[in-house]
Formats: sequence, structure tokens, C-alpha cells
Amino acid sequence: MNEFEMIERYFLPLTRGHAGTAGLLDDAAVLDIPDGYELVVTSDTLNENVHFLAGETPANIARKALRVNLSDLAAMGATPLCYQLNIAFPQKPDEDWLSAFSKTLQEDNEAYGVFCSGGDTTSIKGACLSISITAMGLVPKGTAVQRAGAKDGDYIVLTGSIGDASLGLKVLQDGLDVQSYAHAVSRYKVPCPRINIERIVRQYAHAAADISDGLLADCMHIAKASGLGAEIDFDKIIFSGDVQRALDEKIITPEDALKGGDDYELILAVSPENLPLMIRELQKTKLNPFVIGVFKESNSVLSLLNTLTLCMDDKNLGWKHF
Amino acid sequence: MNEFEMIERYFLPLTRGHAGTAGLLDDAAVLDIPDGYELVVTSDTLNENVHFLAGETPANIARKALRVNLSDLAAMGATPLCYQLNIAFPQKPDEDWLSAFSKTLQEDNEAYGVFCSGGDTTSIKGACLSISITAMGLVPKGTAVQRAGAKDGDYIVLTGSIGDASLGLKVLQDGLDVQSYAHAVSRYKVPCPRINIERIVRQYAHAAADISDGLLADCMHIAKASGLGAEIDFDKIIFSGDVQRALDEKIITPEDALKGGDDYELILAVSPENLPLMIRELQKTKLNPFVIGVFKESNSVLSLLNTLTLCMDDKNLGWKHF
Repeated sequence: MNEFEMIERYFLPLTRGHAGTAGLLDDAAVLDIPDGYELVVTSDTLNENVHFLAGETPANIARKALRVNLSDLAAMGATPLCYQLNIAFPQKPDEDWLSAFSKTLQEDNEAYGVFCSGGDTTSIKGACLSISITAMGLVPKGTAVQRAGAKDGDYIVLTGSIGDASLGLKVLQDGLDVQSYAHAVSRYKVPCPRINIERIVRQYAHAAADISDGLLADCMHIAKASGLGAEIDFDKIIFSGDVQRALDEKIITPEDALKGGDDYELILAVSPENLPLMIRELQKTKLNPFVIGVFKESNSVLSLLNTLTLCMDDKNLGWKHF
Repeated sequence: MNEFEMIERYFLPLTRGHAGTAGLLDDAAVLDIPDGYELVVTSDTLNENVHFLAGETPANIARKALRVNLSDLAAMGATPLCYQLNIAFPQKPDEDWLSAFSKTLQEDNEAYGVFCSGGDTTSIKGACLSISITAMGLVPKGTAVQRAGAKDGDYIVLTGSIGDASLGLKVLQDGLDVQSYAHAVSRYKVPCPRINIERIVRQYAHAAADISDGLLADCMHIAKASGLGAEIDFDKIIFSGDVQRALDEKIITPEDALKGGDDYELILAVSPENLPLMIRELQKTKLNPFVIGVFKESNSVLSLLNTLTLCMDDKNLGWKHF
């Protein structure tokens, strides 16, 4: 199986027959963007041993690589359209790996209504697999939800609990009992992007971000971009059973939960008038959103109520590569 | 300098202040696609020691990473718009490297009329730098030039000479005299994408491809996609002085020149009626295009006239990663 056969057998089906991909035989894909819409574009690279652990299954790598990108589209209120898939293999992958990887991507294609529009398959010297996806979505013109839109008095709403993914990573890295923290481990390994709520996000949220770097870092990004402060009440945060137990047993600190990344819930800035409507609409989609604080005029970008164990160093609020 | 400072200092200026990039503070960029246009999307990944040699200058890496993508847009007849820049660094890059890399990208931004719409900066374990760019361009709806459009009797036109880049690579790898082959080495290191001729390509070419994998491989791609054969007359190919000398001195074989990749000239399929007009228009842009053969109904996908030194194995016509 050479490179072209690999592409034809495993990646071509991911285009789902969309005409603009021309069977992956052209130099580029041609995408029809409906009149009245804007294109929303985001990229995330996942590297072995950095973004996922060595030995992770091809299915989980496929899910994570695509879903972290879809999460960024969700944060903009965009409807996912397609993605470019760039994979650099340290050695020629075996067919079992490729088969599981592409089969899982195809399942997610169907689940999220997207297709692969193209990409590049390359070899890379060194030990690490690297996957770079650029995802594209659509919003009606002028309706994309940005970080800079939060208003004084907007509630800070989370679409779900946080701290799970970083706990899951800790469980795996420290050799803790995976069965006891199965939910957290699963959330680390398989993100669940908050898509399919894009209309609600566009209608009600003044600003939004997904939690990839950590709750505090991502809240601060919205606050700074909007020229406001974020006041978060620790007591209002609803943690999952796994995270609450880990907090109670002092396996993690509140700081770990608040700074841990990779949860991919959304942070939404919502006016008091719209809050009940939005909560109700989100609940109808089976989410359990909750308010954790407020964006407001403030001298400090971030204030935390009801936790004393946190070192407030705004240079160190979440994950950084360097 | 942490990751966010790196992005702000070196990558933010590459957005050239485009509003949809929101200062790189959002989860995604928002791009306005004018009504009546389609989006053309392509990705290329460049890995150290595979696509460029270790120790290559940051300026040349920047040029190559962007330009190979622009070349794919050129082959579609698209006008370049913007690109997503994904860089995985094996270790924290120093400021001199970043400064030269971003300064050169900015020069190319201006030269080619593009901007950086976003991307991802990550760390990768192992020894090799990896850069993945997804470039986007525009074409008026329905006018993208694809590979499948060649017609029986269309001339095969090259926008310039081929074989230089592979000779340049050989000179560097075999320790030959770089000064004697300065043109070839330069073409290997710094591709020159054939953009700014997109209107001509759209108007006259039935099909097009850029030569990234090698003349024979890329000609075969057009022929196969169009259900035709490609008949190439070796004697009609105009080589550069460097390549002609290397052929004369038997430093390379005709096979090397015909199968070598990375030249980034365009192969265009043009009807006999349109040939003189297209040649004249291309010449006005200071290119020196020439006819090398014809696409036609044939039992063989590829036939070569006037060279006896070539092994015609259609599995082995150009570069493959695996």
C-alpha cells in the first residue's frame, strides 16, 4: 500500500462524495459558501505525547483531533461544514490503525454533519504522530459570537462541569485507579464538543469561548477582550462526581480543577434578561448549564469568591506549550 | 516569552489587521466570502528533513511553507485570500528564528496579497519542526480549474522549466558545487508559485495541476482524471541552463528531470484554438510557457517520445512518502 492507495482506501470515503472534493484528485477543494453566510475557520494541532498519550487508540485520536476543532466552531456559534486533515506519520501506519482511525472519523462525520474536504499525508522524522486539522463552519453574516462581546452585568454560564479532563489525565499519568475515575478519564480521552446548540449560542450569548486552556484562562480571555473583569464564585461551580470526590479526597486542589484544560464546555456571557430563556433552551438539548459568576466593570480581570487555595498569578492560569 | 507573547509578537502582525481575525483572540476567524464566489481550500504540511533540510534558514522555511500552498491555489485558478498557520516546535524557538520567520512571511503576505487568519502553535516531542498550512482562495462560482477537464487534443503546456528543484536537492545532498547550480538550488529552496495568472488559467485552461510530485506523475494525474492519455515529447521540454548542463554531464538522467518534484510550475491543458492567445497572455506576465505534448484518447496513460532512458513504471513516477 503506497501513499496514494492509502489516501484512496482510508481518506477518500471521508469526503462523503462531496462534489467539491473531486475525489481528492485536485490540488484543492472547491466549497460553495451560501450567499448571506460567513465562513468560520479554526485550526488545532494534536501531537503525540503532548495532546494525547503515546499508545492512545486510533479511534480516540481521531475523535479528539476532530472534536477539539468542532468545539472552537461551537464557541463561535457556527454550524460545522468540513475540515482539512493533515497527518504526519513517524512511520508507515499499519492497516489496522488506518482502518480504525478512518472508521471513527467517518462516525463523527455522520454524527456532526461534516466531511473531509482534503488535507495532506506526510512522513515525519522522529517518534511522534502529529495531526493538524483546520475546520470550517458557517454563520449567517454578522452573527458569529466573539470573545469581545461580553457586557457589564452579563452572567457567566457554563454548559457543563469542568475539571474532569485534567483529573482524567492525572489519573492516567499517576497510575491511579482508572475504574474509579472512568468518567473523568473518558472526558480527557474523548471530548464532547458543544455543537448542535449553535442557534442558541448565537441568539443569546454576547460572548463565548470553549474551555480548552482551563476555566480561569478562558474566562480571562473573554474578560480581557471585552474590557471587563470576571467574578467567579467557586461555590456555584457544579463538579462531576469524579471531580468532587477527587477534591474531597484532596487528590486534586480547587486550583487544579479551575486551571485544568481540555473540558470543551462553553463559557457563555448572557444578559440577566436572556438568562432564563437560554437556560431553558439549553436544558431542552439535555445539557445542564449553570451560572458561576458575572462579567463586570472591575479593576481586576479575575476575582474568585469562596476559594482560598488559589494562587492568582494571571501568567499561569492554564496550559501553555512554552 | 511564553506562548501567548510569542503569538502576539510574531504571529499577530501576520493577520495584517483583518477584522475577522479579531487579533487572534477568538476561537476561530470569521471570513467574508463575497457573494458569487466559491472558496478554494488546500493544505500542505512541511516537515524538517523530509520537505526541507535540517538547518534550512527560517526565511526559506517560511517561503516554502506558504508558497507550496499558494501553488495549489494557482493550479485551481484561484486568487489567494488567507491561510491558517500551524507550527509544531520540537523545542522553544529563539527570538532570532521567530523574527526572521515572521518577517519573511509578512513579505510574502504583501507580495501575494494574503494574510494569516489564525492557526495553532504547539510543542512536539522529538527532533523535527513541522509546519502545516491550510490556504484559502476565491474563484467566481463554477470557474475553478480542475484536473478532470482535459479534452482530447488539448496541448500540454508548461509555465516554465522543470527538473531544477530535484537537481538542487541532489546538489545539496551529494555535496556538489552549489555555485555552479545556484539557480537549481534556489528553485529547490524557494518555490515560485505561479499566481497572478489565475484569470488566464481560468479563461483558457481546461485542466491544470502544479508540479509538486514531478512532471510525469502530475501529467498522469490530469490524464487519468480526464480519462485520456498524455503524450509528452522529451525534445520539446525546455530545461534551464543548470538542468541542461547536468543532463549533458550525466549528473542526472532525463528520468530524474521528468520525475523530480517541487518545481511548482503549472501544467495546463489548452485547446489548439486557445493556445496562441494563452501563450501571448502568459508571456505578457514575463513567463516563458511552452508546449510539451498533447492529451489524447490513448490506450496508455502516458507515452514519452524521444527518450529511451526512462523506465515506464506508473507506480514510480514521482515522490511518495510511503
